[in-house]
Amino acid sequence: MTAQVPLGDPSDPIEEQRAQSSQTRRATVPAMEDLLYLRHDVLDHGFVRVVDYMGDDAAIVQAARVSYGAGTKKARDDSGLIRYLMRHWHSTPFEMCEIKLHVKLPVFVARQWIRHRTANVNEYSARYSILDREFYIPAPEHLAAQSTTNNQGRGDTLDGEEAARVLDLLRDDATRSYDHYEEMLSQDGQRGLARELARMNLPANIYTQWYWKTDLHNLFHFLRLRADAHAQYEIRTYADTICGIVAQWVPAAYAAFEDYRMNGASLSGPALDCLRRMLAGEQVTKDDSGMSAGEWREFEALIRAKGQEG
Amino acid sequence: MTAQVPLGDPSDPIEEQRAQSSQTRRATVPAMEDLLYLRHDVLDHGFVRVVDYMGDDAAIVQAARVSYGAGTKKARDDSGLIRYLMRHWHSTPFEMCEIKLHVKLPVFVARQWIRHRTANVNEYSARYSILDREFYIPAPEHLAAQSTTNNQGRGDTLDGEEAARVLDLLRDDATRSYDHYEEMLSQDGQRGLARELARMNLPANIYTQWYWKTDLHNLFHFLRLRADAHAQYEIRTYADTICGIVAQWVPAAYAAFEDYRMNGASLSGPALDCLRRMLAGEQVTKDDSGMSAGEWREFEALIRAKGQEG
Amino acid sequence: MTAQVPLGDPSDPIEEQRAQSSQTRRATVPAMEDLLYLRHDVLDHGFVRVVDYMGDDAAIVQAARVSYGAGTKKARDDSGLIRYLMRHWHSTPFEMCEIKLHVKLPVFVARQWIRHRTANVNEYSARYSILDREFYIPAPEHLAAQSTTNNQGRGDTLDGEEAARVLDLLRDDATRSYDHYEEMLSQDGQRGLARELARMNLPANIYTQWYWKTDLHNLFHFLRLRADAHAQYEIRTYADTICGIVAQWVPAAYAAFEDYRMNGASLSGPALDCLRRMLAGEQVTKDDSGMSAGEWREFEALIRAKGQEG
Amino acid sequence: MTAQVPLGDPSDPIEEQRAQSSQTRRATVPAMEDLLYLRHDVLDHGFVRVVDYMGDDAAIVQAARVSYGAGTKKARDDSGLIRYLMRHWHSTPFEMCEIKLHVKLPVFVARQWIRHRTANVNEYSARYSILDREFYIPAPEHLAAQSTTNNQGRGDTLDGEEAARVLDLLRDDATRSYDHYEEMLSQDGQRGLARELARMNLPANIYTQWYWKTDLHNLFHFLRLRADAHAQYEIRTYADTICGIVAQWVPAAYAAFEDYRMNGASLSGPALDCLRRMLAGEQVTKDDSGMSAGEWREFEALIRAKGQEG
Repeated sequence: MTAQVPLGDPSDPIEEQRAQSSQTRRATVPAMEDLLYLRHDVLDHGFVRVVDYMGDDAAIVQAARVSYGAGTKKARDDSGLIRYLMRHWHSTPFEMCEIKLHVKLPVFVARQWIRHRTANVNEYSARYSILDREFYIPAPEHLAAQSTTNNQGRGDTLDGEEAARVLDLLRDDATRSYDHYEEMLSQDGQRGLARELARMNLPANIYTQWYWKTDLHNLFHFLRLRADAHAQYEIRTYADTICGIVAQWVPAAYAAFEDYRMNGASLSGPALDCLRRMLAGEQVTKDDSGMSAGEWREFEALIRAKGQEG
Repeated sequence: MTAQVPLGDPSDPIEEQRAQSSQTRRATVPAMEDLLYLRHDVLDHGFVRVVDYMGDDAAIVQAARVSYGAGTKKARDDSGLIRYLMRHWHSTPFEMCEIKLHVKLPVFVARQWIRHRTANVNEYSARYSILDREFYIPAPEHLAAQSTTNNQGRGDTLDGEEAARVLDLLRDDATRSYDHYEEMLSQDGQRGLARELARMNLPANIYTQWYWKTDLHNLFHFLRLRADAHAQYEIRTYADTICGIVAQWVPAAYAAFEDYRMNGASLSGPALDCLRRMLAGEQVTKDDSGMSAGEWREFEALIRAKGQEG
Repeated sequence: MTAQVPLGDPSDPIEEQRAQSSQTRRATVPAMEDLLYLRHDVLDHGFVRVVDYMGDDAAIVQAARVSYGAGTKKARDDSGLIRYLMRHWHSTPFEMCEIKLHVKLPVFVARQWIRHRTANVNEYSARYSILDREFYIPAPEHLAAQSTTNNQGRGDTLDGEEAARVLDLLRDDATRSYDHYEEMLSQDGQRGLARELARMNLPANIYTQWYWKTDLHNLFHFLRLRADAHAQYEIRTYADTICGIVAQWVPAAYAAFEDYRMNGASLSGPALDCLRRMLAGEQVTKDDSGMSAGEWREFEALIRAKGQEG
Repeated sequence: MTAQVPLGDPSDPIEEQRAQSSQTRRATVPAMEDLLYLRHDVLDHGFVRVVDYMGDDAAIVQAARVSYGAGTKKARDDSGLIRYLMRHWHSTPFEMCEIKLHVKLPVFVARQWIRHRTANVNEYSARYSILDREFYIPAPEHLAAQSTTNNQGRGDTLDGEEAARVLDLLRDDATRSYDHYEEMLSQDGQRGLARELARMNLPANIYTQWYWKTDLHNLFHFLRLRADAHAQYEIRTYADTICGIVAQWVPAAYAAFEDYRMNGASLSGPALDCLRRMLAGEQVTKDDSGMSAGEWREFEALIRAKGQEG
């Protein structure tokens, strides 16, 4: 039964990896050492594991000081300098940190993820090897209906009966497709279809896995887009898990990222003009804002004080 | 019926695009104008269409002469210079040409293709839109068995009965998965599952499409790997089709690419040493070659005169 | 005299290039055809010339519609869709346009420029060829003193006497360095130093030139940073010139870029909170803003109504 | 005197960096630990220092096995698998190793180096800071004349008198340019020219420095081109130094790189045909080789047995 055979390297389990320990002169982050190689579960069968990392908050500062010279030294502490770099889009010092993750994820999530091109990837190959019998089946509370106001997003959750019907279809089709995948590969008295062909029968919720390595600047870009409320829930859970890891790896950089990217916003020139007029006491309406209906709606949502939302 | 609605832009058909004509001062290749926007059929439902191109053989030469100065001018004609650049891995002049293709292809081919990172891509989004009911079903002569000597490759073709069984499985599962995809999306008295979720039920042989834009250097790299005999047949047919297009677009560069990349080979230091000894009359065997069994096998296959193969 | 020999290709002057004209089915922009190959003068000896371009505003829309499907068709006209893409950081459709420029620029500007990695470059090679006797000497009104408040920027303009002294030094050293460059290369009765070595005597204000090709998304990123008020004046003049070109090439995309990037701003989470409190009538000071002194200064400058600045 | 103030971070000297030591679970290479942070001197004032590294030979194997599955496990030991990957251009597993270097180098070398785009760079900024008074002056044995047979390369070494004249010019001009740089910056009773402007007076042999981080695949590509006999001597010495480091870091990968890249060669289709005919006993001459004069010359040089060269 292939289903019981784990993908990857069965003779190199996590405990064996964690047992190794060496002295190093490299920048080291104790919190990362604690979680190295451990699985962070995501979705029903997925995970994220940190396999390696390079650098820490101090490495960002060190690189910035090579660039900007001793002048950066006096006035600021490290955290202040990191915030300055983030605020002014000085991205190269963040590129001096690197992380390598082992990720197990459904194929349709992998297809979104891979669109981030500035990363190194080694994916499990279904040309060479046989995929495991593992599929993503959403939890009922994540079975969202198509949004009626938005081409892209999700609307309400399906109710019990419709949800049950959908889950049955997903489970049955995955099971049957995998059964037939195995049948096509089977070599009992037959030659068996080539793996690279048989895989075409497998649905997009089957799990794959890869090693994924990227620098901190590009990782922040990924997280900015994929931990965002508009990202599809399934990839967002991976991004959220990675956010939790990065917060431990480079706490000062992550705090700056949260303030300036995740919790910040970009305003257009017309939006800034409106703001200035509003702060000067003027009443500004959509019609004299110079913005389209969509822009005005987004602008209003952004500036409304949180306590006033209800 | 979504199945009849073509993906892409139905109001902008090929003939309409081809009817437009303008004067331009830009480098123009008549052979490319002839084939612009036309579909080159690939596999059972796929295609490649040239949507735009920039540059020609002369543009490569022009860029090389900016770099290498007037010295490149005297001694060589354009084709000779292009061959020199290709032979000596001067890749930047080839980057001065760019091509934009519209490609329709099965998802499992798209997954291999996207690993070439240095390109621009806009793919049809199954978050926003509903995919068509179109699946790749291999022709019987491409139903290869798993190779018994090679993890990766294909072996012989399946025989009639086994082939028929496989084709039935592929067709039935695709049909059923798509039926259920439609059922899940259906909104008759129900809200319908979000598109971004329903798509997870679709198998890897469903067709997707994208605009793909890359420069000639990176295109050659793609073709070198994907038009190679070791590439999976399905992506190789796309690469072969693109080879035919590039041969018309930049004939001198393509001829150099064929001679130095497609029909050429890389030899290791030990292999070169063996060659020199053999040319000096020495009998060299695997055991005194300094090569492993695998290397020696590949070396022998490479240097054996074609007439002697039988 | 090398000084009179123009860099580049003397037999292929601009008028000859402009005289060529062909029919094409490709997307064509009349305003770009008018300026193709023409020199836009920059600084004292530099220039920017458009050598080729691919795509137009409609090509951005076309790519977006492949991605986002027919749903993007109904509600919006092209300009509205382009603004939506820019606002929501959907960058891939902008990558479907490409431009190739011929640029002549001082070496110290080229060194900043090349840090933008996602571009194709062919630079005039001082290993193969002899550089011209042309140096950037600033106009007196651009001879700025070191800023006393800012490590990076410029302060006031030098006054007449100090300016004259600086200009004399720059001119004399450039002339002498170039004289010696020629002497070292000279082969009268001697073998002459290799060009790749002799060039090391030349100062950073000597002019070089290159072909530079990039896509519109990366070009906007370049312009965002280099047409910014904080960029060094010398590279900013190149960026400003290119802005003028792009405004003619893709007017809708450029207008969106101006509104959302050039004239827009990013606000941090704490800054947004302050804004919401201020709009709700609260008096917010630096001390209860949650911002550092530097952030507060930048925030105040941003939101102060322009009429109130004095 | 700025000249005595070292670039970079004076309070963070090498010994202090080397004194730090931590426990880590990450892949660790004892030979790299021994040389971490130490200066490898290059040219007269330059150096290369390893600041950090990620991965080792086993990390390449580990990534390959994620991709190619358990099948790669049985037949081969690690070194054999690494050689297979290198031979068949499977580059992604090599991207799983990363190295960060601190390099001090002349500006004209930096200008060649930076053309390798797939790397992260933080360079000392002459906008913010004052450059040191340090220039590359070649050793007399590296003062090569321009080659008379080759646009690019160097010919014989200059003889004593001409060499002396060249060295005097280089030294005098560098000294004078730097004196004037300081004068322009000087603020005694004057405001002093902005640093970003004053630097334009400095010649291309002044030293700069940067942090440079790249993955092993791209590093091999850099070394393949820059440790090559056709590379300019000055950058080649840096590449040679880095080769020595990489040989200690990933000895199996480096040995494969040497065999397949550094000591190997690419042969064109026509060259392979000639080889096959020659091995079958045929006498092949340039005229019936199908090769140009240049290709035939390179081909003959490649296949001639080393003992026969005289």
